[in-house]
Amino acid sequence: MTGLVLTDEVVAPERDVVLEERRMRTDSDPSDQLNEAVQAALFSHHPYGTPIIGWSHEIESLGRADALAYYGRFYTPENAILVVAGDVEPDAVVDLAAKVYGAIPARGEAPQRFRRREPEPRAHRLVTLADEKVEQPAHQSVYLVPSYRTAKPGEAEALEVLAHLLGGGQTSFFFKSLVVDRRVAVSTGAHYAGTAVDDTRFYVYGMPAPGVSLATLDGEFERVIAEVAEKGISEEDLARAKTRLVADAIYAQDNQATLGRWYGSSLATGLGLADVLNWPARIEAVTTDDVVKAIRWLDKRRSVTGFLLPAA
Amino acid sequence: MTGLVLTDEVVAPERDVVLEERRMRTDSDPSDQLNEAVQAALFSHHPYGTPIIGWSHEIESLGRADALAYYGRFYTPENAILVVAGDVEPDAVVDLAAKVYGAIPARGEAPQRFRRREPEPRAHRLVTLADEKVEQPAHQSVYLVPSYRTAKPGEAEALEVLAHLLGGGQTSFFFKSLVVDRRVAVSTGAHYAGTAVDDTRFYVYGMPAPGVSLATLDGEFERVIAEVAEKGISEEDLARAKTRLVADAIYAQDNQATLGRWYGSSLATGLGLADVLNWPARIEAVTTDDVVKAIRWLDKRRSVTGFLLPAA
Repeated sequence: MTGLVLTDEVVAPERDVVLEERRMRTDSDPSDQLNEAVQAALFSHHPYGTPIIGWSHEIESLGRADALAYYGRFYTPENAILVVAGDVEPDAVVDLAAKVYGAIPARGEAPQRFRRREPEPRAHRLVTLADEKVEQPAHQSVYLVPSYRTAKPGEAEALEVLAHLLGGGQTSFFFKSLVVDRRVAVSTGAHYAGTAVDDTRFYVYGMPAPGVSLATLDGEFERVIAEVAEKGISEEDLARAKTRLVADAIYAQDNQATLGRWYGSSLATGLGLADVLNWPARIEAVTTDDVVKAIRWLDKRRSVTGFLLPAA
Repeated sequence: MTGLVLTDEVVAPERDVVLEERRMRTDSDPSDQLNEAVQAALFSHHPYGTPIIGWSHEIESLGRADALAYYGRFYTPENAILVVAGDVEPDAVVDLAAKVYGAIPARGEAPQRFRRREPEPRAHRLVTLADEKVEQPAHQSVYLVPSYRTAKPGEAEALEVLAHLLGGGQTSFFFKSLVVDRRVAVSTGAHYAGTAVDDTRFYVYGMPAPGVSLATLDGEFERVIAEVAEKGISEEDLARAKTRLVADAIYAQDNQATLGRWYGSSLATGLGLADVLNWPARIEAVTTDDVVKAIRWLDKRRSVTGFLLPAA
């Protein structure tokens, strides 16, 4: 956290490694290219629209001074979270942390970032990418929704339950309706990316059955969402979803890396320890009414749809 | 340019005037809402995606200190262009300008702005806005193309000629094919917004004939563009377009405000006086080959299409 030495001899090759990683992962993968374009369309103003690895033309311009400026600004005691997960004694960890990190002088306040806020979305956006490397067409819709940090009490938990009900496994509404009953999709899913500082993403996605167009599949997703909004959900479905979500979270903690990441990402996005500890209780408190209210966020005008297609 | 006095009593009501202007013009007009969403999708990274008036939630946060900071940074002698058009004697204007503005002390260098560059577009984007206030459906496609400042020599002039050939008046390719021959549109147009510091916009737009879908009209625009790219253009069409463009520019100078704006906007976007003075000669130099090369910029992957629809 102090005294980093960076020379041009180290920085220039590392920058090239990042550029190469980007070329390998994104620039040669139509699916990743589409994901980037979808995120950029969803967050046209807020920085979440910029890929974490960065745009190539901007990575190319970065050098030693940029790396050191970033390091100097963000690698400070006030901005650091130490997470230790494993077979340790808490007191011993605290003692050791105080000894190792306590010696580093405080700087004052944690660095503040100014993040542009996304204006209220009003128009649906469809991003289409066709490429000869695509073998299987794919559909995604991403909705701008509140995160655990920006949501009203209970709202983020309801979105979490909603994602599981719509797209979690083979008992989900999407799977039963689109894969089993109507056979218009070979796979479906939904995901709530609740861990974010600002408003975030709710994903609905799937792959069409052979001969089914992405536009048809898109209409089918919309139909299921409208049905849930209109008819509501049963207490039985709700109870099953909650049990599964809480159980998954508890099982996931068997993996110490996952456990550490959960605390780390929660604290780093502005939540507290209590938010992590009482998460199961908050999920248990979600009602059928909360879920129906949460589905109002899945308004087409708040969304970007991505179509991945083989080249014509 | 010096000594501006701003008090909260002046700034707060003016900010409300701007907010009200935005509410009247944009927030209550579906067509303007769509335009904003289209621009935001085209420029997901570059600041041209932000409307000039600003987003409401950001205007609301602005106060006296912001206005003064902007004034202090940008209202400087190094950043000012004085344009005088009319029945004046050049020497007298220069003397007067030296007397009035020459007294203001220089600050050093003109203020620099860091502008994020847009990454290469790869995926077509369709923005759809349906609203009950819409009476006539409308179509637009906006392509990311070089500006007079960023283009290679001759390229911007070729885009200017291309816009006229495609969409300028009743002899244009779009009008003849879509309005007269096929009757799929009631109006068509094209426009090259060449005056910009960074890469800019080429517009293709129209309104469908009754009963014709926007998707059909979109396909018709694409067909005409593909035909021009494949078959090229005749020397006769080219000559007519050039004559008309140059004549329009000369007639426009009869209006002194237009004349002043042409010089002002050219100088403010990084061009020089020579660029304005020899513009007619550069337009005259455009060849049929240049136009066919320029049409390659109208690649669907570089574009955002906007559909304005009545609410279903």
